[in-house]
Amino acid sequence: MSQTIPYKTYLEESEMPKQWYNLRADMKHKPAPLLNPATLQPMTLEELSQVFCTELAKQELDDTTPYIDIPEEIREYYKTYRPSPLVRAYFLERALGTPAKIYYKFEGNNTSGSHKLNSALAQAYYAKKQGLKGVTTETGAGQWGTALAMACSYFDLDCKVYMVKVSYEQKPFRREVMRTYGASVTPSPSMTTNVGRKILEEHPGTTGSLGCAISEAVEAATSQEGYRYVLGSVLSQVVLHQSVIGLETKAALDKLGVTPDIIIGCAGGGSNLGGLIAPFMGEKLRGEKDYRIIAVEPASCRSLSRGKFAYDFCDTGKVCPLAKMYTLGSGFIPSANHAGGLRYHGMSTILSTLYDEGLMEATSVEQTAVFEAATMFARVEGILPAPDSSHAIRAAMDEALKCKETGEEKTIVFGLTGTGYFDMVAYERFNNGDMTDYIPTDDDLKPGFDGLPNVNL
Amino acid sequence: MSQTIPYKTYLEESEMPKQWYNLRADMKHKPAPLLNPATLQPMTLEELSQVFCTELAKQELDDTTPYIDIPEEIREYYKTYRPSPLVRAYFLERALGTPAKIYYKFEGNNTSGSHKLNSALAQAYYAKKQGLKGVTTETGAGQWGTALAMACSYFDLDCKVYMVKVSYEQKPFRREVMRTYGASVTPSPSMTTNVGRKILEEHPGTTGSLGCAISEAVEAATSQEGYRYVLGSVLSQVVLHQSVIGLETKAALDKLGVTPDIIIGCAGGGSNLGGLIAPFMGEKLRGEKDYRIIAVEPASCRSLSRGKFAYDFCDTGKVCPLAKMYTLGSGFIPSANHAGGLRYHGMSTILSTLYDEGLMEATSVEQTAVFEAATMFARVEGILPAPDSSHAIRAAMDEALKCKETGEEKTIVFGLTGTGYFDMVAYERFNNGDMTDYIPTDDDLKPGFDGLPNVNL
Repeated sequence: MSQTIPYKTYLEESEMPKQWYNLRADMKHKPAPLLNPATLQPMTLEELSQVFCTELAKQELDDTTPYIDIPEEIREYYKTYRPSPLVRAYFLERALGTPAKIYYKFEGNNTSGSHKLNSALAQAYYAKKQGLKGVTTETGAGQWGTALAMACSYFDLDCKVYMVKVSYEQKPFRREVMRTYGASVTPSPSMTTNVGRKILEEHPGTTGSLGCAISEAVEAATSQEGYRYVLGSVLSQVVLHQSVIGLETKAALDKLGVTPDIIIGCAGGGSNLGGLIAPFMGEKLRGEKDYRIIAVEPASCRSLSRGKFAYDFCDTGKVCPLAKMYTLGSGFIPSANHAGGLRYHGMSTILSTLYDEGLMEATSVEQTAVFEAATMFARVEGILPAPDSSHAIRAAMDEALKCKETGEEKTIVFGLTGTGYFDMVAYERFNNGDMTDYIPTDDDLKPGFDGLPNVNL
Repeated sequence: MSQTIPYKTYLEESEMPKQWYNLRADMKHKPAPLLNPATLQPMTLEELSQVFCTELAKQELDDTTPYIDIPEEIREYYKTYRPSPLVRAYFLERALGTPAKIYYKFEGNNTSGSHKLNSALAQAYYAKKQGLKGVTTETGAGQWGTALAMACSYFDLDCKVYMVKVSYEQKPFRREVMRTYGASVTPSPSMTTNVGRKILEEHPGTTGSLGCAISEAVEAATSQEGYRYVLGSVLSQVVLHQSVIGLETKAALDKLGVTPDIIIGCAGGGSNLGGLIAPFMGEKLRGEKDYRIIAVEPASCRSLSRGKFAYDFCDTGKVCPLAKMYTLGSGFIPSANHAGGLRYHGMSTILSTLYDEGLMEATSVEQTAVFEAATMFARVEGILPAPDSSHAIRAAMDEALKCKETGEEKTIVFGLTGTGYFDMVAYERFNNGDMTDYIPTDDDLKPGFDGLPNVNL
């Protein structure tokens, strides 16, 4: 096919961002602060610094500084896998027969397989700089745990990962990647923490949950000298670090002379979407440009489109601070048949606030439609996408098909967050015809989450 | 660290090779022809065309045309994952404390996880152009099968993969990637072929072998209208297609103004090494430049350094033509404890001929040393390498450490052929301390392969 725009655009190393962009600085209505669960008062720097390392606690609280320098050590390591390519999806456009122009920013070409490494490196760097011995975290599917293991290995920091037991047993490859990078991986619940022992005593046969793994990781961090807890999504500091995705995307589009009409990203906790849209939303907030911005959620876990904008716990175990966000309730458990990732009950406070103000849209997609899109994408574009990422592919394809009907030549940009090499069990179910659409759980059929009692701020 | 050369160098799309380079054209002593196993006479175009599609049979026989156009349809698809980066291994250099300058050409950033896609696309394209319905092949670990499934999906061609039964059962993820790309994957031996049924009758509990899978794939191709058999290594046509690796490497080095002293590649059947070194060896053959060129073999399967340069069967089943090559004998079975890939008994005729003339060296490495190198590389450079590829890493590190002793600032280039995401069982064995060095088999302790009776050409 004839082309003036290359299939892939890479920035030069010298064009890579030297600062993260802090979207909050341009927000008129600032995201509400995290609350101390004991006092229901905003978390102070001192309080946050007991859980997170101090520089990250500062970033969590900073809603006024628009640009924050990326330390040189982080920029150096970014060069091992960044800049990531901005891809013009010529093959997908042709397969769809659409006049739309589709681009995607591909974050999967690194060993963690996703964008998670962008924030893991930052969090490990600041922990090392503070002189800490190590960090603890939880992981479910394993992308975040892998990213953190890589970052800690690079900065020579101990890394303790609590991995949900069912994933630990079913995803031994993910576990081994983390161990290869020197992390210790403990199936959760475990006998290494008080909370783990308590849960095992009460439920000897449990296969674990993310909520329980978070509780163990937090206990491990706060009960050992020289350790802090780190988290891969939801937090404003994570959205800050992930702005490198959007900044590179915008720089590449500017080089090509392209202005997008629609920007699409999948939304679990919001780290990828928040990072991708940051500089575009900044222009929108400053009244310089307008874009349609779409968050894509799974039908089985519609935090934005079905949840309530209220203070809620970030974790099932209710040990973490409260965040004001769109939430289905911290006790929400997504449908068991759901294979597509993005299972988090809440959503980044930054994104929740923007959505509440009507600055972005939310849509939801069924998982069989997601895997149909994923398979088509894999066959024409070559990349086997992660199920999470494929939510954005599905929505982008749907927008492109609307353009086919109307004849509009819209420019669509979406975030392709990762690869699906460790998700073949879900693909197998789809390939065998055993995957079904969303089956509502009992929880889903109850009235929606109503907010916590006594926390209506 | 200060740098004038970027961490990663990508060619522009416009700088990507438009022709493959046929190294044979510059060889004074041409590689010996394939022989018909029935007549022991050189295979004719007609004979080869019964197994391979005609254009590929022509390429197999062409040892005079130096440059062969890459069809535009192939170049178009190459753009989905090429150009691949030439990486300056700054982090590895620093970790080793060597004055050597290390570069690697990374071929793993595509869904097949390796360089195999370069030839799979070519072979699928020519099959489609000839109007065939489909192709058949065998796969062991699954890299080649995955690459072929992707290529056939793109060119809308049926793809039948015979996968060694033990791999089919132990590597379900690889199998599902192939199925996602629309290939049918049959565990071998199977009841779908005469040879499969015969083997199952004689050995009901067998878990299969590559030799058996080849025999089934060849039978499936030759017994069905509109099908041909394809092979991912060893053949001269494959080395031709893989020259895209070396051409891109040389173009990138020329742009940077860098001339390598040493070029290193792992060697199984020879496709990656032959492709990487092609343009450099061409200069050497034409007397324009000199390079040290090193093939790295596993200690357990030293075709070049222990084998005999003689005619032998390419397959264990002895249904394929005879090739003149360094071989351990087509019945050779590598040590069962060997996890590192590169288990092929023979070696590309092109490379065998060059080695026989003293134009390249061969070295061998033990598997624990390979996994030590792989783990160190993963931690400092970020990429989790395939065990096969890690043989080249080990040898490159050893050369760089020699430079540390002598103080020489040599420039070393090696081929990093792929990623290890599907090889975590081997990494697990290493992480657990359960991996041992090469344990010689009974075969190894016998005198070396002596050549076939009556075939001393």
